[in-house]
Amino acid sequence: MVFEITPRSGTAFLLNKGQKLTVIDPRGEQVADLLAFSRADPREVISSGRSLDYASKLFLSTGDPLYSNRSKVMLRIIADDVGRHDFLLTPCSEDTFRIIYGDEHPHRGCFGNLAEALAPYDIAPDQIPCAFNVFMNVQVDGGTGALTVEPPLSKAGDSIVLEAEMDLIIGLTACSALQSNNHAFKPIHYRIDDPVA
Amino acid sequence: MVFEITPRSGTAFLLNKGQKLTVIDPRGEQVADLLAFSRADPREVISSGRSLDYASKLFLSTGDPLYSNRSKVMLRIIADDVGRHDFLLTPCSEDTFRIIYGDEHPHRGCFGNLAEALAPYDIAPDQIPCAFNVFMNVQVDGGTGALTVEPPLSKAGDSIVLEAEMDLIIGLTACSALQSNNHAFKPIHYRIDDPVA
Repeated sequence: MVFEITPRSGTAFLLNKGQKLTVIDPRGEQVADLLAFSRADPREVISSGRSLDYASKLFLSTGDPLYSNRSKVMLRIIADDVGRHDFLLTPCSEDTFRIIYGDEHPHRGCFGNLAEALAPYDIAPDQIPCAFNVFMNVQVDGGTGALTVEPPLSKAGDSIVLEAEMDLIIGLTACSALQSNNHAFKPIHYRIDDPVA
Repeated sequence: MVFEITPRSGTAFLLNKGQKLTVIDPRGEQVADLLAFSRADPREVISSGRSLDYASKLFLSTGDPLYSNRSKVMLRIIADDVGRHDFLLTPCSEDTFRIIYGDEHPHRGCFGNLAEALAPYDIAPDQIPCAFNVFMNVQVDGGTGALTVEPPLSKAGDSIVLEAEMDLIIGLTACSALQSNNHAFKPIHYRIDDPVA
């Protein structure tokens, strides 16, 4: 069963240890911000700093683990059609649109969508860290450090598969930032598969 | 008055809005991990994701603000002798030394030092985010994404000055990771200056 996240929205759901989450870009060039919290204690949360440090690289793909702030593996990427995702930048938010785009009446962005979706799990907005930004294509100039947000490399139907290594609460969006999605807001699809018996 | 942080240790202190914090590398090639929490509500904390996103660059220096997870400016860099600091990687920890160095009896690292120093301010270890790693020299390959930790560019006596834009609790270390400090653990000095009347 495939679930749809409509454009510029988000959701949250449970993912059990051993289950596989497939995130699909049905139309191409659409980002999905992914958060993970431990169900046993939601103060344990996905950590870009630990994941990038232990991998000694910026761009994670097949085989790479996503660590928590307690250095435990939360998820592992087990398949990846695209190979380019971002783990540097914060979910887009009212502040993003105000500060970067100069919007006077900003959309609440992925941050607002995630905050609403996670509230029933008693996760407060302040607990939202850097997301693993699936399909987001941030180009990095190693010399100057300049970051530029380019169109995602994902084509229609491309996907990434992540396996849970603990019981998790997942937050997932269809990203709301114009630049990140080549200036068109599209849906994101996802599927959850049980371990093969 | 100059305070000393002895090698492989850390401290925490209050910094008022308008005060300037000078972090000094007295011997050269020594990193200092810097954390900031809002005194009004320590759930508001320094955010690498927001700071790098709004700056659209990896390497922050003079004039650049360090944002909180609520997109408020906590600190602003107002002078910088070195121009190369890291905001990607997590504070070194028992886990760092176990996972990256393979140590069997790992040091508690900056993470453990910060956790102890911040405990009297009711800040729990889980609340420790990515630090602003003063003087840390992480080279980035923009093509492959590879991250390599190189000797700091700081020479004896070099410093960075940050001005507080809100009342803060600061955590600060003399970093404990061999690679980050060109394989020698040295002290860090710091000074707090009141606004000129």
